[in-house]
Amino acid sequence: MEFDNTSDTNLAELGEFGLIKHLTQHIELYQSSTIKGVGDDAAIIFNEDLQTVISTDILIEGVHFDLTYVPLRHLGYKSVIVNLSDIYAMNAQPKQILVSIALSNRFKLEAIEELYSGMLAACKKYKVDLVGGDTTSSLSGLVISITAIGGVKKEDITYRNGAKESNLLCVSGDLGGAYMGLQILEREKSVFKENPKLQPDLEGKDYLLERQLKPEARKDIIDTLNSIGIKPTAMIDVSDGLSSEILHLCSQSEVGVELYEEKIPIDSLTYETAREFNLDPTLCSLSGGEDYELLFTVDISEYEKLKNSMDITIIGHITDKAKGYNMISKSGTVHELKAQGWNSLLKKIRK
Amino acid sequence: MEFDNTSDTNLAELGEFGLIKHLTQHIELYQSSTIKGVGDDAAIIFNEDLQTVISTDILIEGVHFDLTYVPLRHLGYKSVIVNLSDIYAMNAQPKQILVSIALSNRFKLEAIEELYSGMLAACKKYKVDLVGGDTTSSLSGLVISITAIGGVKKEDITYRNGAKESNLLCVSGDLGGAYMGLQILEREKSVFKENPKLQPDLEGKDYLLERQLKPEARKDIIDTLNSIGIKPTAMIDVSDGLSSEILHLCSQSEVGVELYEEKIPIDSLTYETAREFNLDPTLCSLSGGEDYELLFTVDISEYEKLKNSMDITIIGHITDKAKGYNMISKSGTVHELKAQGWNSLLKKIRK
Repeated sequence: MEFDNTSDTNLAELGEFGLIKHLTQHIELYQSSTIKGVGDDAAIIFNEDLQTVISTDILIEGVHFDLTYVPLRHLGYKSVIVNLSDIYAMNAQPKQILVSIALSNRFKLEAIEELYSGMLAACKKYKVDLVGGDTTSSLSGLVISITAIGGVKKEDITYRNGAKESNLLCVSGDLGGAYMGLQILEREKSVFKENPKLQPDLEGKDYLLERQLKPEARKDIIDTLNSIGIKPTAMIDVSDGLSSEILHLCSQSEVGVELYEEKIPIDSLTYETAREFNLDPTLCSLSGGEDYELLFTVDISEYEKLKNSMDITIIGHITDKAKGYNMISKSGTVHELKAQGWNSLLKKIRK
Repeated sequence: MEFDNTSDTNLAELGEFGLIKHLTQHIELYQSSTIKGVGDDAAIIFNEDLQTVISTDILIEGVHFDLTYVPLRHLGYKSVIVNLSDIYAMNAQPKQILVSIALSNRFKLEAIEELYSGMLAACKKYKVDLVGGDTTSSLSGLVISITAIGGVKKEDITYRNGAKESNLLCVSGDLGGAYMGLQILEREKSVFKENPKLQPDLEGKDYLLERQLKPEARKDIIDTLNSIGIKPTAMIDVSDGLSSEILHLCSQSEVGVELYEEKIPIDSLTYETAREFNLDPTLCSLSGGEDYELLFTVDISEYEKLKNSMDITIIGHITDKAKGYNMISKSGTVHELKAQGWNSLLKKIRK
């Protein structure tokens, strides 16, 4: 998005319609299913013989993000990614988004342009059309609500409830990194509060910061599985932490699970940093959220196709429901797997 | 929605997933196009040969509603209606909604149940399916973000940009009532602040309060037009005030307009109450928002079909663009029609 020569433009001067016009002037459309984008009472989409997949997420300042260390452009990017991830988790391709934002008058036009430029960068990368939304004022913080829309052939949809006994449990990428990125940012924020002259110590932590601030959605995994001819029996994206997602998938599929601790993919930097913070790396991957990886199950007959796939790890297998939800630890002991959202994590994770 | 025997249940005890499960247990589905509702990463919709219409609105406590006088059940109902209205304005039928809410811990489970019961009442009345959403915490106020999805045959869609010279300009129902309802509620709030022992004086104002607190979307108008064989050339819903909507419709259609002040439908109670408040009734209808009526244009050849239609008023006609946007006042003088959103209205409307 280009910038005008307006400096610190007041949103009140521009008005709601002026703001919308200003922000939407650089929108490009990539999808033939977009019949009508912004500018009417509603957007029009035509997916022909595909089924329409639709998901929504709301992000609240102070709850989901902290503007003291999150750049607005990254926030815009991430807020789109979070929603696209849900569409990929249905084995569908995202095609459109609607974006609603509520903002107080402490935001200048330039700040909103930054936010939008991040959203449009994500749209460009994933070839998704921004087709509508709502812009309004807020009395305090920034609120971002995004709805993502995708298309998928009926026979390709992967629900959460299709996992079967003896299926392999797989996850893409590595886990716990976004959570450790958050820990670093929170630490530097505290340091800065105590002594504003100190520069933040983020050296060598780029990977973790990127996992937290600028995550990607795993379109590549969906495309890979498709190209090697694997359709997962069940799939979910990892937004709340591995254990919570495994439990969702298994309870909806009415099956049990055996997860192998030693198989959980944890990047070495995540591991070292967890140790530095006196945290258990496994617990960070089980309960730390926001990794936006894909967790899925496949028939055991797919093992040969899968075993050499880049960036997919087999971490366990599905069992009979009666066996329950278990993690086999590195030492061989069996632990019951429990859900633990990342909100309650900070208190419990410290050893 | 039925109530449990839990009294003042704390949301923290229930947790996000518990809350979602609790709230969604009473959802009924009415639409065959709903393939998968709540419970997975995304909802699945299949509109077959219909095009999919989609719109979103965000409502912020303190900006769009004031919980000191808005009952939560009405708020839930209205927040759905606002979105359905956008779908009808495309000449489409709404079929699904997604609901995101962010709320602080000052809300008890019972309060959220009230809000949801209003949403589900609107869903039931309009036969719309609640298929997904997001529930999260907020640091301060209540935030409601709703996305509505509908279906329409390609040839039936009415955009804002189809108005042609000599078309008749029509509006459903009457205007300014929701705005006067708001004035009454605001007045009683001020009185209550000064003297909490005084009972609010709302007698005889039921119609205006209902227009503000529990509006309806004009499905009946869409159905009537369809049954008498009229397809509007352009249509928009009246959410921001008549003048602002006329300007949207005319600027997008690249036409001018002549609006007749004496034709603007204003209910007698709205008229009297405006006078009581020392406000100009015409200005209240032009600039007062939230009426959720439909403003549309039709070919002049449809006049015979239209002239006896219940609850539709011809208020003007479309002219050449060069003639501009004009209102012919009751005394015959010509005024340029200007946009004036209802946010800025309070300051300017007082005579």
